[in-house]
Amino acid sequence: MQKLLMTPGPTTIPELVKLEMAKDIIHHRTEEYSEIFKELSQNLKYVFKTKNPVITLTSSGTGAMEASVTNLFSKGEKVIVISSGNFGNRYIQLAKLYGLDVKEISYKWGESAKPEDLKKVLSEETDVKGVFLTHHETSTGVLNNVSAFGKVLEGTDILFVVDSISGILSNEFKTDEWRVDCAISGSQKGFMSPPGLAFVSLSERAQIAMKKSDMPNFYFSFAKHLGRLSEGQNPTTPAITLICAVNVACQLIQKEGIDKVLDRHKKLQTLTALGIEALGLEFFVKNSEDRGSTLTSVISPKGIDGQEIHKLMQEEGVTIAGGQADYKGKIFRIGHLGDVNEFDVIVTFAALEKVLYKLNYKEFEIGSSLKAIQEYLIKNI
Amino acid sequence: MQKLLMTPGPTTIPELVKLEMAKDIIHHRTEEYSEIFKELSQNLKYVFKTKNPVITLTSSGTGAMEASVTNLFSKGEKVIVISSGNFGNRYIQLAKLYGLDVKEISYKWGESAKPEDLKKVLSEETDVKGVFLTHHETSTGVLNNVSAFGKVLEGTDILFVVDSISGILSNEFKTDEWRVDCAISGSQKGFMSPPGLAFVSLSERAQIAMKKSDMPNFYFSFAKHLGRLSEGQNPTTPAITLICAVNVACQLIQKEGIDKVLDRHKKLQTLTALGIEALGLEFFVKNSEDRGSTLTSVISPKGIDGQEIHKLMQEEGVTIAGGQADYKGKIFRIGHLGDVNEFDVIVTFAALEKVLYKLNYKEFEIGSSLKAIQEYLIKNI
Repeated sequence: MQKLLMTPGPTTIPELVKLEMAKDIIHHRTEEYSEIFKELSQNLKYVFKTKNPVITLTSSGTGAMEASVTNLFSKGEKVIVISSGNFGNRYIQLAKLYGLDVKEISYKWGESAKPEDLKKVLSEETDVKGVFLTHHETSTGVLNNVSAFGKVLEGTDILFVVDSISGILSNEFKTDEWRVDCAISGSQKGFMSPPGLAFVSLSERAQIAMKKSDMPNFYFSFAKHLGRLSEGQNPTTPAITLICAVNVACQLIQKEGIDKVLDRHKKLQTLTALGIEALGLEFFVKNSEDRGSTLTSVISPKGIDGQEIHKLMQEEGVTIAGGQADYKGKIFRIGHLGDVNEFDVIVTFAALEKVLYKLNYKEFEIGSSLKAIQEYLIKNI
Repeated sequence: MQKLLMTPGPTTIPELVKLEMAKDIIHHRTEEYSEIFKELSQNLKYVFKTKNPVITLTSSGTGAMEASVTNLFSKGEKVIVISSGNFGNRYIQLAKLYGLDVKEISYKWGESAKPEDLKKVLSEETDVKGVFLTHHETSTGVLNNVSAFGKVLEGTDILFVVDSISGILSNEFKTDEWRVDCAISGSQKGFMSPPGLAFVSLSERAQIAMKKSDMPNFYFSFAKHLGRLSEGQNPTTPAITLICAVNVACQLIQKEGIDKVLDRHKKLQTLTALGIEALGLEFFVKNSEDRGSTLTSVISPKGIDGQEIHKLMQEEGVTIAGGQADYKGKIFRIGHLGDVNEFDVIVTFAALEKVLYKLNYKEFEIGSSLKAIQEYLIKNI
């Protein structure tokens, strides 16, 4: 059996994508590469649902988050950062680090952000230049309503920056329709590819802000990346094999169709929820409408360390994720994104039942999670 | 026939390294990954010839160059940047961009840097905090005498930062013995792997400077990377497949032995020089002692555009590099680094003779470059 990666990134990688990386490398300053990079850039626009350019950085998602601060703002500018977890907090840290005047709207982990809170802060503050929001908060599994926040910003000139690193492709995301000026994602989540690339969409408003910014940038300079995009080139040597890999992954996504990809993730989320309920376990995100289709966060049963569950699952060949920061040991997270199907969820629960039994949590009927999932599958053929 | 990449990066990638990337990806927050990353970090110390830590960034070499400026210096500090080409100039740009007080020592392209010039500037300037030098200047093929510059700095507390992105592994490099505080390299040159990773060694002096720096850093924060190095971890998601790939490449390098790797590159340089001479072509770097074993820069024959040579070589299946900046079209560069052997050089010259003939440069005896190379090979069995 292949080992399963049921984590919120990196995810299992499709065979064609893996084999792409084993091919002879091509040089980046060639027509051959330019054609591939142009195709990828087009594919990214399709995935982001945007008519604006999407640039590709060789870095993790955090590099792109940092770059959105240093490329789109100037020191001292006022921004609102909305945080409902670890990655929202990262944006608070980044914006403060670069001397922005940060107004925080923070929520308890596991809760989603409320558009009316943004409306309220905007009514109290003047001269706000930007709003930062996390689409899907990887640390908790909370999905924020980006569309509703975008509506709050309509009619203003405020930059809307959205971290959708783990959101896009497992959850609906409409960059232009939702009035997002700068959306960020990474290669190792819904894109079913290895980590190492980050993608950044830039609206006209974002491009104007970019020209006004007083902060220094070179490697992460959006202007440099945009400047070479139309010729299918990057300002410095890109991670060529990863670019070829993500391009193949995008071809697979286009072939499946983005709506079917989203439906598949929704279904995997439903199956996971059925399994969790059958085992009598508690969701970390209380409100089911706040849960994304990227991962499911589960509270560790009383007296059981979530890290132990993670560790024993690993020994069964199924990698899940533990909790982050204050929730380390208290929750565990089952990723169900990327190249994952219903049978992978069944295997995950087969392993989870075993592990819970080993750890002396026995408050469930053996096989009940598998039965619940299977019933849904067969009734919905 | 496999297409040949005779460029100064990316280079041809050994089969085992390519196959490593086609394997199932592992999660980075696991023991399995930590073991691999620890092994890589050890291997990097072996390659860099240093007892100090070498950190790994997910970025191209330029990202690491920028990071060396923002992590090791504070705004307004005086530094000397020595430039003999495109990549030396990049350091001038970067240091100025971040508000350092830059004293330039620049040389004509194709000339190497002179240690006595550094000595002179140091005698005129006070309070110099750092010196930046390019080991091997990829734009020209010039190899600078890092050891001699290190000697000039002995007895001072000046930080010595060396870009050896294309230098290390095709040319001797001794980080500690040469008094280098911060040496930088990248995955796609001597490391025979795809681009996407950069490596940075940090001496104690560099680590002290790092703590004093007043510039903001997050993704590229050396402190964050150093902080997790001993546990075999990275502060954010690393390019996992590339880390596994470079580790396999390092195993191959260790198996061959670093001295043999260097001897092989020296021999490839010799063979290339014999071929160039046989064809009556002119070296761009006049002084043979200034030439590195990474690549050979050649002046395009009168009336022939170097970019045409590059283009027609590409059609023959042999990728070489053109000139950069002012030398675009005026020179071409034959890379001979990485997983390349003597027969690859022979094929390159077979193609080059053909291409030159097509472009109407016929001032050589057909086959003379192959004969010259072959004579050397057979006499030195």
